Amino acid sequence: MRVELNSLPNIAADTLQRLRAQRPRVHCITNAVAQAFTANVLLAAGAVPSMTIAAKEVRLFAQRADALLINLGTFDVERQKAALAAIPVAVKNGKPWVLDPVFIDRSKPRAAFAKRLVGKNPTVLRLNQAEFAALAGGAPDAKAKVARYAAAAQRTVVALTGESDFVSDGRRLATIANGDPLMAKVTAMGCAGSALLAAFLAVERDAWKAAAAALIAFGVAGEIAAARSRGPGSFAVEILDALHALDSETILAKAKVS
Amino acid sequence: MRVELNSLPNIAADTLQRLRAQRPRVHCITNAVAQAFTANVLLAAGAVPSMTIAAKEVRLFAQRADALLINLGTFDVERQKAALAAIPVAVKNGKPWVLDPVFIDRSKPRAAFAKRLVGKNPTVLRLNQAEFAALAGGAPDAKAKVARYAAAAQRTVVALTGESDFVSDGRRLATIANGDPLMAKVTAMGCAGSALLAAFLAVERDAWKAAAAALIAFGVAGEIAAARSRGPGSFAVEILDALHALDSETILAKAKVS
Amino acid sequence: MRVELNSLPNIAADTLQRLRAQRPRVHCITNAVAQAFTANVLLAAGAVPSMTIAAKEVRLFAQRADALLINLGTFDVERQKAALAAIPVAVKNGKPWVLDPVFIDRSKPRAAFAKRLVGKNPTVLRLNQAEFAALAGGAPDAKAKVARYAAAAQRTVVALTGESDFVSDGRRLATIANGDPLMAKVTAMGCAGSALLAAFLAVERDAWKAAAAALIAFGVAGEIAAARSRGPGSFAVEILDALHALDSETILAKAKVS
Repeated sequence: MRVELNSLPNIAADTLQRLRAQRPRVHCITNAVAQAFTANVLLAAGAVPSMTIAAKEVRLFAQRADALLINLGTFDVERQKAALAAIPVAVKNGKPWVLDPVFIDRSKPRAAFAKRLVGKNPTVLRLNQAEFAALAGGAPDAKAKVARYAAAAQRTVVALTGESDFVSDGRRLATIANGDPLMAKVTAMGCAGSALLAAFLAVERDAWKAAAAALIAFGVAGEIAAARSRGPGSFAVEILDALHALDSETILAKAKVS
Repeated sequence: MRVELNSLPNIAADTLQRLRAQRPRVHCITNAVAQAFTANVLLAAGAVPSMTIAAKEVRLFAQRADALLINLGTFDVERQKAALAAIPVAVKNGKPWVLDPVFIDRSKPRAAFAKRLVGKNPTVLRLNQAEFAALAGGAPDAKAKVARYAAAAQRTVVALTGESDFVSDGRRLATIANGDPLMAKVTAMGCAGSALLAAFLAVERDAWKAAAAALIAFGVAGEIAAARSRGPGSFAVEILDALHALDSETILAKAKVS
Repeated sequence: MRVELNSLPNIAADTLQRLRAQRPRVHCITNAVAQAFTANVLLAAGAVPSMTIAAKEVRLFAQRADALLINLGTFDVERQKAALAAIPVAVKNGKPWVLDPVFIDRSKPRAAFAKRLVGKNPTVLRLNQAEFAALAGGAPDAKAKVARYAAAAQRTVVALTGESDFVSDGRRLATIANGDPLMAKVTAMGCAGSALLAAFLAVERDAWKAAAAALIAFGVAGEIAAARSRGPGSFAVEILDALHALDSETILAKAKVS
């Protein structure tokens, strides 16, 4: 397993700069709860979000997007159709897409749909431990399981987020220890992180690097926000400000990658 | 009418502590405008929200929830079906459910649907004066009418919110004078309060105590937030921080119950 | 072209005061991303928002509203039906309505629907340069084109927003230079501005004056917010506070109209 750990903070800093310069379009098929905060995270980082799920339009928006996010957080028929319409457009255009299978540990129909989408080789699969267990079964060592699952998937990078984040493409594995517990106290924080990941993929073709870079940047922004907050309300505000102002020096100083 | 007024602030403090320890799941079938803020209020208080309204899943989420919220703020067909699917699951499992009949004073079809749901005996009916009038007719003395309505309903606690809140199960009546006028200047504040009420019901089986306790806690958080705000924008942020940090001492010092 | 430029700041100040006194109801058929922020902007300014898009109810809400907003930001079938149901009710009642054709530069079906609605003579058409180009074709001089387009439309005021805003009814043209670049970094800021415009129309029958007044007030609030913010997160909070506290003196001191 070849690792490039030392360079990941540099890659995170560089990718964020390129994101701001290129202003990639990210089309998000995401849940109703997360839409506004997700759009605001993308805007704060420098990307251009679009959020429509309407059948007539979703192919058009996917066609012009630089990356696509599929989030299963509200599992209505309209969003399922939108996902199935948009993914082939992204694939055909060689554009990256992220799958965030929210709460598949809670609902079998949603888990079944997620497995179907996993079969379409998302560029990155971003999920938490409970969701990963629903997809891949429980494991005493999540880190090793992420690497094995990514190796078996071949064409999908797995980004398992939690107290530490694990990112693997089967060959390389990064462990990222940035972030703050308040991130779990704001709805849609993980969903928005997946959208940010899609934006990073739009400007960095190595999906493993892009995924790790996005999680580093988001985690560092979370730490800055936590230091300025006195609870989850101010934290949600501060993380947008922190992401908007995030510079390379801060990323390099605060990144915790091993 | 037996009252336990002196102990309600203690009950509010105690119930909030148990909520944080038990982290109950609250499934919310609520309007599109309120979803994100409602989820954030639940997270700030220590509960675990879920928000799906998809037909295939709503029974599964209701099945695993510790309490259910039905809010009629956006009265689409999907949400009506979701409500009718989820309520029997909650009832069968002996789980509490809250009905918040938003804006039934504005729409007859919505009022008719609300009456149908009232017939299913919500654990708590939470509404404002205009909504109560649409359901129960106008009255010169809202307080007395709440008590009579609750007595007639037998199995439903009525929580009428306004400048003062009145909570009655027909036998007991509490008047709560906490809160701040800025609460009416932020969308979904009442909706989120109803969700908090559902979370309190999840950990306190006496629905009258739970409802009064939730309104005390939310009102006190509102007062703390108002003191730190200079308008409705900062108020919406500060009430989440205040709720997250709310301790027993503050509740006991600030509760205004008569 | 008769202009009343000197008086527009006064009109903005006066109209906002009347808005607060009259508390007009504004019914918003707007996109899912924008609903909560839009409602909060209306509440902060002193209006009373309603947001339902349900087929059974939308006529009832339009019937009782003092102004109507149609925003095409999420172009689903339900919202299209709601728009087509609500507009004739507003027209029949002589109530103003605003069309905000979001992202029609990105989607031909949406642009076609927008053109159909433009044919119904919205009181004000509020859009940005890319959207205006999709509707009216590109032009080297947007300002002159706005005036010509408004003159041809006869019964619709055009409000083109951007670095400077241009508002014309074909006879009069106002250029407003208020606002801040951070307004483009928060999702739904333009959508919420259109809702505010609808609220101003509810209390000021001269649609050109109302549109210019709303854009002045919103732009001034944006400048106050920017001075108090360190990024897009705090900006979105501060603009609500600024709008809530906005007084005539500040409008007169800061308005930039030419």
